[in-house]
Amino acid sequence: MRTLLLTPGPLTTSDRTRAAMARDWGSRDGDFLVMSERVRARLLALSGAGAATHVAVPVQGSGTFAVEAAVQTLVPRGAKLLVLVNGAYGRRVAEIARRLGRVVATLEVPEDEAVEPAAVDRALAADPAITDVVLVHLETTSGLLNPLAGVAAVVRAQGRRLLVDAIGSLGAVPIPDGLPFAALVGSANKGLEGVPGLAFVVAERARLAASAGNAAGLSLDLHAQWQGFEREGGQWRFTPPTHAVAALDAALDQLDEEGGVRAREARYRRNCATLVAGMRMLGFDPYLPDALQGPVIATFRAPSGGGWFNFGQLYGYLRERGVVIYPGKLTAEPSFRIGCIGAVDEADMRRVLALVKGFVAAHRRAAQAAAETG
Amino acid sequence: MRTLLLTPGPLTTSDRTRAAMARDWGSRDGDFLVMSERVRARLLALSGAGAATHVAVPVQGSGTFAVEAAVQTLVPRGAKLLVLVNGAYGRRVAEIARRLGRVVATLEVPEDEAVEPAAVDRALAADPAITDVVLVHLETTSGLLNPLAGVAAVVRAQGRRLLVDAIGSLGAVPIPDGLPFAALVGSANKGLEGVPGLAFVVAERARLAASAGNAAGLSLDLHAQWQGFEREGGQWRFTPPTHAVAALDAALDQLDEEGGVRAREARYRRNCATLVAGMRMLGFDPYLPDALQGPVIATFRAPSGGGWFNFGQLYGYLRERGVVIYPGKLTAEPSFRIGCIGAVDEADMRRVLALVKGFVAAHRRAAQAAAETG
Repeated sequence: MRTLLLTPGPLTTSDRTRAAMARDWGSRDGDFLVMSERVRARLLALSGAGAATHVAVPVQGSGTFAVEAAVQTLVPRGAKLLVLVNGAYGRRVAEIARRLGRVVATLEVPEDEAVEPAAVDRALAADPAITDVVLVHLETTSGLLNPLAGVAAVVRAQGRRLLVDAIGSLGAVPIPDGLPFAALVGSANKGLEGVPGLAFVVAERARLAASAGNAAGLSLDLHAQWQGFEREGGQWRFTPPTHAVAALDAALDQLDEEGGVRAREARYRRNCATLVAGMRMLGFDPYLPDALQGPVIATFRAPSGGGWFNFGQLYGYLRERGVVIYPGKLTAEPSFRIGCIGAVDEADMRRVLALVKGFVAAHRRAAQAAAETG
Repeated sequence: MRTLLLTPGPLTTSDRTRAAMARDWGSRDGDFLVMSERVRARLLALSGAGAATHVAVPVQGSGTFAVEAAVQTLVPRGAKLLVLVNGAYGRRVAEIARRLGRVVATLEVPEDEAVEPAAVDRALAADPAITDVVLVHLETTSGLLNPLAGVAAVVRAQGRRLLVDAIGSLGAVPIPDGLPFAALVGSANKGLEGVPGLAFVVAERARLAASAGNAAGLSLDLHAQWQGFEREGGQWRFTPPTHAVAALDAALDQLDEEGGVRAREARYRRNCATLVAGMRMLGFDPYLPDALQGPVIATFRAPSGGGWFNFGQLYGYLRERGVVIYPGKLTAEPSFRIGCIGAVDEADMRRVLALVKGFVAAHRRAAQAAAETG
């Protein structure tokens, strides 16, 4: 039986996506340049933005690399960012911006609550020095989906610029058409179901054009990366992860064939609903209220009265049986997480639930026996 | 017939190396952490340094990302670098260091001449402010192999630190055991014959330990990346290119089986000698004197009296017949390049030579016919 990754990226990819890595590509050869340009056009379309106003710029590395490229290139030195924080990824953006010497304010809300557009509105009204706002669309710390359209409307009304960390959401949740954003950051190995090693920023052309010289270094200079593509017709400045680009191109074919992001979201939501309902029956309460639960990853609290429960044992039990979940928690409270994304369906979720059920039965019994003898 | 990449990375990988990408890995799962640590240990060994003094730190992205991580982390602000330049990659290191606000001096020599240790000695003696020296070991602009051991000895005698860009050389040319270096930068997709998307720095432990806070950003902070591995037993701070790590691990198995770097160098040298001799017979003079020619890539001048010759036509002719060479030149003078590295042997080189011969015959004939009728 195949190993399932139920992690929030890297994730389980399809055989077809991995098969796309079975050949080598010359990174400056015409065939590869055509593929790169096709992938760029598809990423732009997924962001809901048009080619007249926005452009997709791939970045080598993980999603964090692209977040850092966007912040250091698109947010001028001396600008002030408001980072909206309800999890580890929001905190990371704030850390990146501080490390880059930008002035950073944060609006922090508890990890099991959504960022409220009204609160953002108040924060912006109170501080006219803020030029840029950063929202993590889907905070994979908990799996919470923040209200992107509402926050974007407030930011626009206040005349500030919006940067969206859509690493967790892109492909899994539709981005509204024509959303006003200066930058939207995504990664190949989340809802797009590619392999890790490749990320990207969809950036506003005017903003990008005005950003020469903002970046501290060369590798993550998004302006220079963009200029490279524009000047040389799809050429990357520095060696691209050719196999990861080919895998993403194949993964995007499959996204189209599935019916696009809405169809994929529906599959992920079925996965997540199956998982959450089943886990609830087994005594694991979801960390988030249903209304805030995004379709990407679910966080569960340790069972109540669960002195018998040890996460490391659950992880190992599942691992031995071919299912890899995320080892360790990111929320402030004790919890663990199981991903709902990737090339997986409800049957896979039922397979996991059956295993968790077996684990619970065995460990409850063992704890009970120990209590009786002890 | 399989497509050959005769480019200086990405290059032709073996079927076995690409097959290692046929499964997904949980990036925080035990199996992957063990593989990551094994790869780190193997990279350290390839650098000729010991675990007591040095440590290997992988970096997501291309080789340039790792160069930038090494420079911004290991060279303190206010330090002065001497960059030894005889090609585009030396110029790139200087550009990176300048962008990062370091004080940069360069020692430039023509692209078809090696950096001379005596000249480095004089430059260091003349400028005691220089703390760090950067050498590109194998300058893939031309294919020239610089005298690493000689430069290292001079740098050590002068009490400065050496950073080696070994991206072009590692795996293809042995690094002397116990070479005194502060950093040695390599990439997965050159002489190690892995896939692109993964690079690394072998760094002096003492230097790395003293470098906290030097880096401008988060993603390319080599100190923080190292601390992540050390604290968490092989965990990458940010999502690693799991498939590229697996491919490199498989590629390193094959390097061992081939007999290590000396055996691989011998194969590459045979490839290169076959190529250079054959091209010479076809009227293409090598750009470098034989004594400076490294075993990685050969640069050729356009043929003399070659009004009939057009590189774009040669590129397209080979491309249609399944051979991808590097499209475009990097040297200041008109030239083109053909790689000798990757999972290729002398028979592959003879295949290329037969194609070039066919191209030359057809195009000379066509030019002659045009001259007669014109």
